[in-house]
Amino acid sequence: MAVSNIRYGAGVTKEVGMDLQNMGAKNVCLMTDKNLSQLPPVQMVMDSLVKNGINFKVYNNVRVEPTDRSFMEAIEFVKKRAFDAYVAVGGGSTMDTCKAANLYASSPHSDFLDYVNAPIGKGKPVSVPLKPLIAVPTTSGTGSETTGVAIFDYEPLKVKTGIASRAIKPTLGLIDPLHTLHMPDRVVANSGFDVLCHALESYTALPYHMRSPCPSNPITRPAYQGSNPISDIWAVHALRIVAKYLKRAVRNPDDLEARSNMHLASAFAGIGFGNAGVHLCHGMSYPISGLVKTYKAKDYNVDHPLVPHGLSVVLTSPAVFTFTAQMSPERHLETAEILGADTRTARIPDAGPILADTLRKFLFDLDVDDGLAAIGYSKADIPALVKGTLPQERVTKLAPRPQSEEDLSALFEASMKLY
Amino acid sequence: MAVSNIRYGAGVTKEVGMDLQNMGAKNVCLMTDKNLSQLPPVQMVMDSLVKNGINFKVYNNVRVEPTDRSFMEAIEFVKKRAFDAYVAVGGGSTMDTCKAANLYASSPHSDFLDYVNAPIGKGKPVSVPLKPLIAVPTTSGTGSETTGVAIFDYEPLKVKTGIASRAIKPTLGLIDPLHTLHMPDRVVANSGFDVLCHALESYTALPYHMRSPCPSNPITRPAYQGSNPISDIWAVHALRIVAKYLKRAVRNPDDLEARSNMHLASAFAGIGFGNAGVHLCHGMSYPISGLVKTYKAKDYNVDHPLVPHGLSVVLTSPAVFTFTAQMSPERHLETAEILGADTRTARIPDAGPILADTLRKFLFDLDVDDGLAAIGYSKADIPALVKGTLPQERVTKLAPRPQSEEDLSALFEASMKLY
Repeated sequence: MAVSNIRYGAGVTKEVGMDLQNMGAKNVCLMTDKNLSQLPPVQMVMDSLVKNGINFKVYNNVRVEPTDRSFMEAIEFVKKRAFDAYVAVGGGSTMDTCKAANLYASSPHSDFLDYVNAPIGKGKPVSVPLKPLIAVPTTSGTGSETTGVAIFDYEPLKVKTGIASRAIKPTLGLIDPLHTLHMPDRVVANSGFDVLCHALESYTALPYHMRSPCPSNPITRPAYQGSNPISDIWAVHALRIVAKYLKRAVRNPDDLEARSNMHLASAFAGIGFGNAGVHLCHGMSYPISGLVKTYKAKDYNVDHPLVPHGLSVVLTSPAVFTFTAQMSPERHLETAEILGADTRTARIPDAGPILADTLRKFLFDLDVDDGLAAIGYSKADIPALVKGTLPQERVTKLAPRPQSEEDLSALFEASMKLY
Repeated sequence: MAVSNIRYGAGVTKEVGMDLQNMGAKNVCLMTDKNLSQLPPVQMVMDSLVKNGINFKVYNNVRVEPTDRSFMEAIEFVKKRAFDAYVAVGGGSTMDTCKAANLYASSPHSDFLDYVNAPIGKGKPVSVPLKPLIAVPTTSGTGSETTGVAIFDYEPLKVKTGIASRAIKPTLGLIDPLHTLHMPDRVVANSGFDVLCHALESYTALPYHMRSPCPSNPITRPAYQGSNPISDIWAVHALRIVAKYLKRAVRNPDDLEARSNMHLASAFAGIGFGNAGVHLCHGMSYPISGLVKTYKAKDYNVDHPLVPHGLSVVLTSPAVFTFTAQMSPERHLETAEILGADTRTARIPDAGPILADTLRKFLFDLDVDDGLAAIGYSKADIPALVKGTLPQERVTKLAPRPQSEEDLSALFEASMKLY
């Protein structure tokens, strides 16, 4: 169980210059994306760096939903410049790109695929020391500030994959709720759904002692180790916050209490799933995002079709938890209750449908598109969606119930329409 | 918020050799005490070191309830030997001694008082890098495997004090429930009371945003920062485990489930209080232990009078929480409920007495001595006990309610008899 250091509070971003000074950093890479580079969070970081006399260069070419190519561009940029520390300001895309850049700059003779998860890459364990990385999240979803995971689209195979190693976990996450006030409502909702699914999936993942293989050397064990007594605490706590605050956070951009709590919940769920792992909602989300046709999500300022990650994750959740409930019905009922269901007279065999109905109501209340059909998919797409899920074995094998291709088909089909 | 890495499971101790190998360690110090050095936990560690070809030296001269002199002996031992990693096998005394040894060996030109908490020492921030330290706790109380604190008796002034810095936090804690099966019942009870008070005190400590001073540079902020949304999670969770399992763990040495859970609870509460801090029960416990006359605790194999730490902490808890309840009555009621009180019709002004009564019943059920009188103190000792508490400002100032010398007197007096 590995946990990042985090610091929470309105304005903690302003301390980043002192933190870097305390770390002895003299030449810092500030990584962000083009949109954010003009906005207050990045300005606040730059002011702090200047004030503390820290020399830095900005890389603002991070791609939202990064690819192997966008990762490699960032890696090339940093390899040339001998940075001794990194600051990532943004959402998951930025933090993940920065983790990859730090890793490959610290291991300059590695091939890109060396550290990428098998079977796409070689999944080598990381044994080189990395430079300090401070993550400043500006969305409330990925929890990437607390995890050792960096996700990207591997374009040659058109699949999502990633790098997963405790070694790339940020040195420090600065959880500053001030950055949440700029988020439009769909960004709050979709990133909140990512938190919701991180919590639900890590809490219902295969228990750690049932995972196989179980390598005898700790360094070769996967970052995602299955649900365990510590990740459970974070998952349940994050879920309680989602239940209490997500709707308020979506509906009122000035509700600092709600948005602050969701910002913390994102980190909490990250600590949970960063150790336990996620399973089917995430595994199936990658082709849902990757095979997007024309859908353009409201409130996202990008020039290409996009199914936001949190949306692609949550749309299958009613079907997924109906499917998995038989393996741990008590946990499924418990999470339904946290999300508002009255479970006092619930029967154990109904745990799945009860959680699924609770999720449908939750999504309906938040104006979520009515299933995969509403974002442009039809039955004819199911074989491609299943095919895109198969390489996600790293996560799908953490589902508490094994699944055949037929099972995956049925899950996609059941997710076409929600209400 | 800084959290240690921990690994939990029956037999994880056997992995220590691989962990050290993965860290590149070649010359390891194995620190323990004389009793333990003949027992299975130490044997298991040595076997793993031998099996993995790790060269090591044993230091088994740790004093139970360490002093500045016993710390310095350990420091002298390690300074001569250029160790590149440490393994501490034992309770809080061993882990704390090992933290101090690692610190001063890494900072060989420092005076002993440089890093000791002010006002007794200089309280300098630690900026030297330390060697890796793996902690293997064999009692279920201190949580020292997760904290950046090392406590000792400073003999020249006859007061307890310590060193508190995130830098001395163990690199890894191996939480192996197999080690809990050897503990006699009073050791389980007293170390469990330490967990109980860590949880109650950190949950009711002054909130972090009300703490002063509030240094602008993160490196100069105290390790104990006041209660906060993250430490709260750990405190409440640890308390639930104590409520469910402590009595079972005390009464049945073979109840592996109960003892395993208490072993985890100790680490959880440590993560909580290691960030939030403790307050009056701990602050007042130091003179209760330090001024011991003839009391010899059952089940402790030592040649001198001893009030075990957990006992000295818990005996004042009914009085302390009666005193503090007015600052956060809801939290006091919530913890009473977790410990078994029926609070459905409770009135807010009764929160303190309700929690106090709940604690008295809990202690009575576990055959705890009837207050300070039962361990040898009388009214005549109160001025000395108060005087011994005053230098503990580092923790007492984290109490939610400020306290005068008269208040402290009244708290000791109210703790003379419990039932």
